[in-house]
Amino acid sequence: MKHIAILGSTGSIGTQALDVIKANPTLFKAAVLTAQSNVALLVSQALLFQPQLVVIADESKYQEVKQALAHTNIEVKAGREALCEAVVLPHLDVVLTALVGFAGLRPTIAAIKAKKDIALANKETMVVAGDLVTALAKENDVKILPVDSEHSAIFQCLVGEQAPIEKIYLTASGGPFRGKTKADLAQVSFKEALKHPNWVMGAKITIDSASLMNKGLEVIEAKWLFNLAVEQIDVIVHPQSIIHSIVQFQDGSMKAQMGLPDMKLPIQYAFTYPDRIVSDFPRFNFMDYPSLSFEQADIQTFRNLALAYDALKKGGNMSCIINAANEVVVAAFLKERIGFLQMSDIIERCMDRVSFVENPILEDYFETDKQTRIFAEELI
Amino acid sequence: MKHIAILGSTGSIGTQALDVIKANPTLFKAAVLTAQSNVALLVSQALLFQPQLVVIADESKYQEVKQALAHTNIEVKAGREALCEAVVLPHLDVVLTALVGFAGLRPTIAAIKAKKDIALANKETMVVAGDLVTALAKENDVKILPVDSEHSAIFQCLVGEQAPIEKIYLTASGGPFRGKTKADLAQVSFKEALKHPNWVMGAKITIDSASLMNKGLEVIEAKWLFNLAVEQIDVIVHPQSIIHSIVQFQDGSMKAQMGLPDMKLPIQYAFTYPDRIVSDFPRFNFMDYPSLSFEQADIQTFRNLALAYDALKKGGNMSCIINAANEVVVAAFLKERIGFLQMSDIIERCMDRVSFVENPILEDYFETDKQTRIFAEELI
Repeated sequence: MKHIAILGSTGSIGTQALDVIKANPTLFKAAVLTAQSNVALLVSQALLFQPQLVVIADESKYQEVKQALAHTNIEVKAGREALCEAVVLPHLDVVLTALVGFAGLRPTIAAIKAKKDIALANKETMVVAGDLVTALAKENDVKILPVDSEHSAIFQCLVGEQAPIEKIYLTASGGPFRGKTKADLAQVSFKEALKHPNWVMGAKITIDSASLMNKGLEVIEAKWLFNLAVEQIDVIVHPQSIIHSIVQFQDGSMKAQMGLPDMKLPIQYAFTYPDRIVSDFPRFNFMDYPSLSFEQADIQTFRNLALAYDALKKGGNMSCIINAANEVVVAAFLKERIGFLQMSDIIERCMDRVSFVENPILEDYFETDKQTRIFAEELI
Repeated sequence: MKHIAILGSTGSIGTQALDVIKANPTLFKAAVLTAQSNVALLVSQALLFQPQLVVIADESKYQEVKQALAHTNIEVKAGREALCEAVVLPHLDVVLTALVGFAGLRPTIAAIKAKKDIALANKETMVVAGDLVTALAKENDVKILPVDSEHSAIFQCLVGEQAPIEKIYLTASGGPFRGKTKADLAQVSFKEALKHPNWVMGAKITIDSASLMNKGLEVIEAKWLFNLAVEQIDVIVHPQSIIHSIVQFQDGSMKAQMGLPDMKLPIQYAFTYPDRIVSDFPRFNFMDYPSLSFEQADIQTFRNLALAYDALKKGGNMSCIINAANEVVVAAFLKERIGFLQMSDIIERCMDRVSFVENPILEDYFETDKQTRIFAEELI
């Protein structure tokens, strides 16, 4: 029985992870559940799964949760610091980091230090501080099991392979605005941006998908997860989202992982790795997808992807800058404070202007994150 | 340094295997070369690769080969029996079985008994006697490394995977006659049948590709190589021949191996497994293949595939019957003695009429092969 902590249990990944756990009660136990502010869902999840501990990050909601669970044995904590305490509980096996953005960094580090395997759904952690996080994982002999469908695909393709990777292709659906011009994009609303053609996901990642920033962040994430040079990472637009990503080995052979777009599969794989278990997930049928198509990403129009490559090439704290700026502009776009194209403009200005640190330590990342947010806000 | 015997060195697979060996002279040594009757090419290969032994299967050509290599240290033998002697040489590591048809069975068995790993390019061996061959390989702790692009694809996708296979998809190009009706097929010539859209191969396998018998034989081969039930093996037509085959695991995840159609890759992989080495094979580029398409095989028109499934379901010596009948009808079709559609008709009559043996031993297979060839010839 694997004991699992789910950081972000009320989000899209968190709820699907609980579906996986619910379907396999003899294999998995949800030992810790945490949420930012969704009390109602967190409480109902807690009552159903009876974890040892729940954490509500928004401290103002502590009493509400505490009261709702008063008649149970479930411990309740509140606040961001409590997330770091939650992930170190002795008999936890895996910590699923399914919270959004930079906020995932501290608890992920705490979990690694406590030698818990990480099921990584919080790509921003790798984007911001991939160098430190991967080094720390190695030092603590901790597995980082990717949950992003693309990185899970690469990870699955690498199982049992000893040979060096020549390159990888991360597939991208292209999002709801694929094929649009800059003039089109100047007009789009956040509601249109939230209509992803293939995947049902949280708001932040859905906007990131529409702007191709999600793919940019994934390029950076892939660099750290698979120890690649930037030239080894390519992006290919594949609107059907059936081939989830591809590895090309040094002999030229390519392996792809594929299937219907369904996050439960990579979540479950992270929990069962290196095994696989029987699932009732809907199966792919070629007759439903008689053609799989591929095209180059339009990085002139969707500049975020080019900016992410720039950040990766520049190194240092540049990926931290791009991530922080992106979090601010996405929040602003969702509130209709800025338009779609302004997001890239502001991110680029942050990359130009926030202090560059060549060899950052952890504190530098926190400082960079803070400074970038302030600067980005000023530009909005 | 791996010492390799190439049975069938003058054929399509054999010559490509020698290209692989030539490109990696520090890793591979062609220790044995054998050919059916192509003296000129066998001799020139021998002079270039300086094997320990060459065998010409056609005994009438022995003197010719012997004389041409008289000034070398290369031993020369002739005859079918010599093939079985050639594969047991002490320091051989791998035997590549690239000869055509039923003739591969005896030397393959001899090599397995001598505990040589098999790089299997002679699918007929598995089709005829997959039960005996796989049992013998297990008993002798011998690896059977598939060289067929489809089976190599499955094999590559299975590396490192511990979980049971749910199903596999063998991809089929559909051959030169994809989309044709029975009325069309009644008219086609062997020259048209030899024009494969994607793969350059020997005559027999190219006709088998045109008639879908090749895919049928591959279904049977896959059953034995991967220990599958017939229901677990599906065929999907994929005209571009980029995805070479697909495994679906019990969690629903699918892995595909892909790349340009190039037999050197599976040949090299069989030689380097479980490693991969750098190659200069042309790399796949998605921009050259912006769409990969899939369709169901037309087994009403191309009946051979259905017959192969029938043979597999029936078990016993039925796959041996279908293979022998097919060898006879393909040879007859190539000599314009029968038309394209008659091939299936004659195969089906052989399946109906040749004595069925439920639990054949090796001798039964030889007897079945012989009886089937006689009966098929009578029908031509």
